[in-house]
Amino acid sequence: MTQRLEQQIAFLNEADKLKSVVRATELCDNSRYENSAEHSWHLTLYALVLSDQAGPDVDINRVIKMLILHDLVEIDAGDHPIFGSHDVAAMAAQEQEAANRIFGLLPNDLRDDLRAIWEEFEAAQSPSAQFAKSLDRFQPPMQNLQSGGGSWIDFDVTEQIIADRVGSKIAIGAPALWNFARERIATFFASRL
Amino acid sequence: MTQRLEQQIAFLNEADKLKSVVRATELCDNSRYENSAEHSWHLTLYALVLSDQAGPDVDINRVIKMLILHDLVEIDAGDHPIFGSHDVAAMAAQEQEAANRIFGLLPNDLRDDLRAIWEEFEAAQSPSAQFAKSLDRFQPPMQNLQSGGGSWIDFDVTEQIIADRVGSKIAIGAPALWNFARERIATFFASRL
Repeated sequence: MTQRLEQQIAFLNEADKLKSVVRATELCDNSRYENSAEHSWHLTLYALVLSDQAGPDVDINRVIKMLILHDLVEIDAGDHPIFGSHDVAAMAAQEQEAANRIFGLLPNDLRDDLRAIWEEFEAAQSPSAQFAKSLDRFQPPMQNLQSGGGSWIDFDVTEQIIADRVGSKIAIGAPALWNFARERIATFFASRL
Repeated sequence: MTQRLEQQIAFLNEADKLKSVVRATELCDNSRYENSAEHSWHLTLYALVLSDQAGPDVDINRVIKMLILHDLVEIDAGDHPIFGSHDVAAMAAQEQEAANRIFGLLPNDLRDDLRAIWEEFEAAQSPSAQFAKSLDRFQPPMQNLQSGGGSWIDFDVTEQIIADRVGSKIAIGAPALWNFARERIATFFASRL
């Protein structure tokens, strides 16, 4: 019992490092870049508040669990900004190794349960995973609209690039959210001409 | 529909401010103080990983929702460190006002649903709320043990004060977690003599 609890706490202490992984998105008030732990919290709140955007086969409790866990691998593999250029296969391999190490800190039953939730998110095939992925893509543009452009300015992207890399993903699990974002993004870029 | 979504997004943008509310607990690596958003995320992970510590009447999905929402009122009312001295009645009144304003940004149905979850947490009467409260008290000592004492040093507290203010609360919803923490806290203080 104590050994089990020691493993659980070792995992939770390791997870603390996610608070030091810095993302490409700024806070709404433009004061600093967001970290992956507070981003994960914000996404769980998005899921609670926007559950009416989920399709009938989405299990919102499962979505929330995915969002709690989805970025843990960044402790080893780092954050890969959506507008950066990456070796997708190498990144996926790094993340699998990270998942082996980090979930491997847990007792076997918990390791398997939480790894399965993370793998479901990564595979992006189930309705719940598709909705979770859509929220993960929808939150950064909402913050960029508040902070004056954020990562759109830093990476010098166009509306078309946002539509291709972000919008196409939001639309899979939450089409009305992409409609909402697209209009506001168009207004934002028009105001900069 | 668009007006509803605008209210939902206004709430989510307002919630971003929780990332700027600084707590008295340091990160495990001692690099800085934790904020209430990343703390909330970490607690949801505690709930996922330590659900085997919950009694039979605890609804772990409800616990997770409570932990997502539990600190939102700090956007207006601030964080009140457990070892500080507070006017409890004034603090509760401030938090009620904060809840009126912040949850009031939402469409009425969502406002009522999320407010009810937060009120259940605050009341600390249901088994789910008691477990959620226990996790909220259990995480800071786990971090203090990693960071070299953290808020225990800053507030110059004794083992007895920790047992009275923190341990007594952990023990209500998760007695085995308090046993685990108490032993390690004793070892920590013994090492400082």
